[in-house]
Formats: sequence, C-alpha cells, structure tokens
Amino acid sequence: MFRLTCKTYGASRHILHPQISSRRAFGATAVAMDYASIPTPASCYADFCLIPIGTNTVSVAEEIAQVQRVLKASGLKYTMHSAGTTVEGNWEEVMTVIGKAHSAVHEKGVVRVQSSMRVGSRTDKKQTAEDKVKRVEDLLGADTK
Amino acid sequence: MFRLTCKTYGASRHILHPQISSRRAFGATAVAMDYASIPTPASCYADFCLIPIGTNTVSVAEEIAQVQRVLKASGLKYTMHSAGTTVEGNWEEVMTVIGKAHSAVHEKGVVRVQSSMRVGSRTDKKQTAEDKVKRVEDLLGADTK
Amino acid sequence: MFRLTCKTYGASRHILHPQISSRRAFGATAVAMDYASIPTPASCYADFCLIPIGTNTVSVAEEIAQVQRVLKASGLKYTMHSAGTTVEGNWEEVMTVIGKAHSAVHEKGVVRVQSSMRVGSRTDKKQTAEDKVKRVEDLLGADTK
Amino acid sequence: MFRLTCKTYGASRHILHPQISSRRAFGATAVAMDYASIPTPASCYADFCLIPIGTNTVSVAEEIAQVQRVLKASGLKYTMHSAGTTVEGNWEEVMTVIGKAHSAVHEKGVVRVQSSMRVGSRTDKKQTAEDKVKRVEDLLGADTK
Repeated sequence: MFRLTCKTYGASRHILHPQISSRRAFGATAVAMDYASIPTPASCYADFCLIPIGTNTVSVAEEIAQVQRVLKASGLKYTMHSAGTTVEGNWEEVMTVIGKAHSAVHEKGVVRVQSSMRVGSRTDKKQTAEDKVKRVEDLLGADTK
Repeated sequence: MFRLTCKTYGASRHILHPQISSRRAFGATAVAMDYASIPTPASCYADFCLIPIGTNTVSVAEEIAQVQRVLKASGLKYTMHSAGTTVEGNWEEVMTVIGKAHSAVHEKGVVRVQSSMRVGSRTDKKQTAEDKVKRVEDLLGADTK
Repeated sequence: MFRLTCKTYGASRHILHPQISSRRAFGATAVAMDYASIPTPASCYADFCLIPIGTNTVSVAEEIAQVQRVLKASGLKYTMHSAGTTVEGNWEEVMTVIGKAHSAVHEKGVVRVQSSMRVGSRTDKKQTAEDKVKRVEDLLGADTK
Repeated sequence: MFRLTCKTYGASRHILHPQISSRRAFGATAVAMDYASIPTPASCYADFCLIPIGTNTVSVAEEIAQVQRVLKASGLKYTMHSAGTTVEGNWEEVMTVIGKAHSAVHEKGVVRVQSSMRVGSRTDKKQTAEDKVKRVEDLLGADTK
C-alpha cells in the first residue's frame, strides 16, 4: 500500500497578485495571467443530467420536469433525451440556467442535487446540435451506398 | 427499427412571458415561475476534466497545466487528482473559472475543448472535499476494528 | 496552503483473501464479501460520449461514425443524440460494446481515447429510454391543461 | 419550435450478420467489421462517482464505503478522492468492478443507482495515475523558477 498525495490549494494565497510569471508557459514565452481579463466562451453546449439525492422515491421524473420548466423559462435552445438535456448558448447563460435548475429542485425540498455534465466550446465555427448529428449520419449513409 | 423523437425547443418562443402557470407543478400547488428571480446555488463543488481536441499530440499535460494556472489565479480552493480537478465556491465563481479555463486553452491555439463535469450543491450544510473523504474513511475504519 | 491526502491502494495485498469481515458493514450485521459471487447488473443503460485525443483535426465525426458502426454490429439497442449515444442491455454487453468502440477507434490510429459516461441500473422494473422521456413529457403536458 | 429526430435502433436486425461492408469506412478502404473479433482495451483507467437514488437520507457515505469495500476486494489499484474514485486495470476488470459496486449497493436495498464515469485508454504506453499528476506538476514547477 502506498499513498498518492493530491495537492489542495486554499483561498488565502496570492489573491492580490494573481499574475503568473513564468519563463516557459505552455511551451511559449513568459506571460502574466490577468484573471479578470480572461473571457468565458461566447458559445458552448452543455449536456447535463441532474439527479436529486435523498428523495424518498425512486422516480426522478418530477425533478426532471421541474428542470425542463426552468429551461423553457430561460428562452435558450434545449433538447431533452432519455439520459439528459442538451442546452446551447453563451457560457454564462448556459451555466446560469443549470444553476437555476439546481435551485428550483432545491426549492421543492430536495436537499442535495448532483449533475453530470459534458460541456464543449470551439472557436472555429458555430455548430448546432443538429449539425453534429447530421455530419455523423452523412458518414454512415455513405457506408451503405 | 423505430425512431425516438426528441424535442428541441427554439429560442423564439415565450421569451417575453417566461412564467409557467400550472395547476399542478411538481405534485404541488400552482406556481408561476419567475426565471429572473431564481438564484444559483450559494455554494457548490465541481469536479472537471478538460480535454483539448484536435491537438497534434497525445499529451494533454500542457493544457492541464494551463488550467491549473487559471485555477490558481482565481483564488478559489481546488484539488488536482489524476482524473480531474475539484473546485469549490459559489456557483457563479466555479462556473466562471471553468469557462475561463476553456478560454485560456483556446487562447493557446486549441480550437475545440470539451470538459466532463460533476457538480453538486446542497442546502443543509457546507461540506468540504476533506469532510467527504473523512466520512467514508471513518466508516471503513470501523470495518477493521 | 495545505495538503489533502488521497489513499491509493496497490494490487499487492489481500488478493488471496478478498473477504472483508466487519462487525458493522453498511449499518447492518457483519458480512463477508465474496467478490467472485457478486453479479453485475442484469440490465442497465449507458450514455457515453467518446473523444479521440491527439488527432490532427478538430472534427470528431469520423470517430463517432466508427463508434456507431460498432454499436450497430453489437445488436444492442442504442440511440445517438448530439452529445452522445445511449445504449441499453445487460452490464457486461453494454460495457463490452463501449470497450470495443474504444478499440475500433484505436485501430484507426488514434492513440488515446477518452469517454464520458452516465450509467444507470435499477432493480425494481425495466424502464426503456422511451419510457423515461414519456414520463417527463406527461408531467409537462399536465402543466398546460 | 422544431423537432430533432434521434434515431433509435432496435435489437431485431442484422444480428446474425453483424458485418458492415462499406466502400468508405473512416476515410479508408472498405472493411468488414467482425464484432466478435474486436478486443476491449488491455489497460484503462475509470474515474467514477456512484450515486444511490431514492434513499431516504441525504448522506451517501454508507454507499460510498460499500463501493470502497468492493474495490478493495477486487485486488485492483484504486484511489478515492472527494468527487469519485479512480480504478486502473484492463477494460473488463475495471468495468466488472464498477458493475459489482452497483450490485453491492442494490443488495443493501437501494433500488436505483447511477454512476458518472470518465474512462481513458491509450495504446502508446502505460501511464499510471501518479505519472499523470507528476507531469503536470513538473510543468507547473517550471513556472516559478
């Protein structure tokens, strides 16, 4: 048996001076990192599955319906499937609606909520959920010709 | 072969009137949902694993190091392990630092970035990463007595 | 700054005697755990998103098409959506097809592959992907009546 | 509002003839896919977080302790952290232990169990959990010199 040490960093250090000075940052020249100036992605998608914990019933349909109501109220584009919901928009909007979904389920008396998420961003082009499915189907369609 | 229809909702509808009026919402009395007034959780944790896509190299260590620099600059508490990093704070702070991590990796020339995340929130008490590990270890410790 | 210790357990111990004897296991009476006799779930679903790492191109459609070919060849029931694919069957079948999907992508020259998965099992009833979507839609349908 | 059609494939087709003949598979020459002959990866890691659903209590520590007992009994190498556990081995061993963990939690009376997983495989070299953390820390260590 042996131990692996994980490092945990606290909130008490360096906060006034968040710049990182390095001679070699990411295989490149030294850069100072100015945290406040880093943007969040202008567009992204998130596919998430929210689970209520500690409810007295095995069904999660009530909570998922509540999540769908929050998504509808957000005005964002979203798609529900059997293992989650995919929502598209800019990073802040998308993360905010998922946070509000957590809160709306908490508000119904669920003390603990966990979500599993896949989040993607890209800088080259906008690609919708439909585009992605279509590209794969086109490739598969060519198989059988 | 059959088809399952998923519903996708667009951004064009009901945006001016996001309230949901229902006689039965979540097994309870009718409520109107006022989207703007729903908060995001005051505290949460997110465990995430960021993957750069389309880089020419099999190693992801440079990108993960960049993510760690962003986390350090945030001032939030975080722990790196071999399959991801856990970060703690309020919802907005936590989601913002992960979005900035995406952007900081994009900035280094990576066109596409995907993260897998687990996010948890609870309303009963604050429980740190260390608390959670300790509770399980205490239970396991009792096994061998 | 402080350190959180994670425990890593090696492969060198106790292998000949995997039984766990405890006076209190899971709030109950003492049990010996006979690893070999524990079954894997008779049915489950897995929703997964496979990502090739270190390819020279930002598109993953070729790899996802290859994954779909493996799924088709498996004979299992599956549904592709824009952020992953859901496959249903018994635990061993489902995990095997995902492992074969990894290998089929490796075989095309992709050195590193990572999947994000959600896996669910339940012992009370069989519930298909369609059943789950329908239950939520029925609840939402009641909202507008 | 519009609809996105997802395709679901049933178990009734082609099972006796799982070969896929295509003139263009994955940008290459035609191949017949012989499902039975595709191996699963010889080594992989899986980081997973198991959640019991429908328990009457907000704590999941009892269930996580049970998962750790199953992992210990497996003889595989594993590391618990605050947001999951990472286990290493060949594909079949790793997926089997996670399936047995589901069953061991079901056996304690939990009707529904869901896991979020990240699974990685690579064909170029073996890289342990410790190697991965060390590579990133070495890069970060160079920052401050």
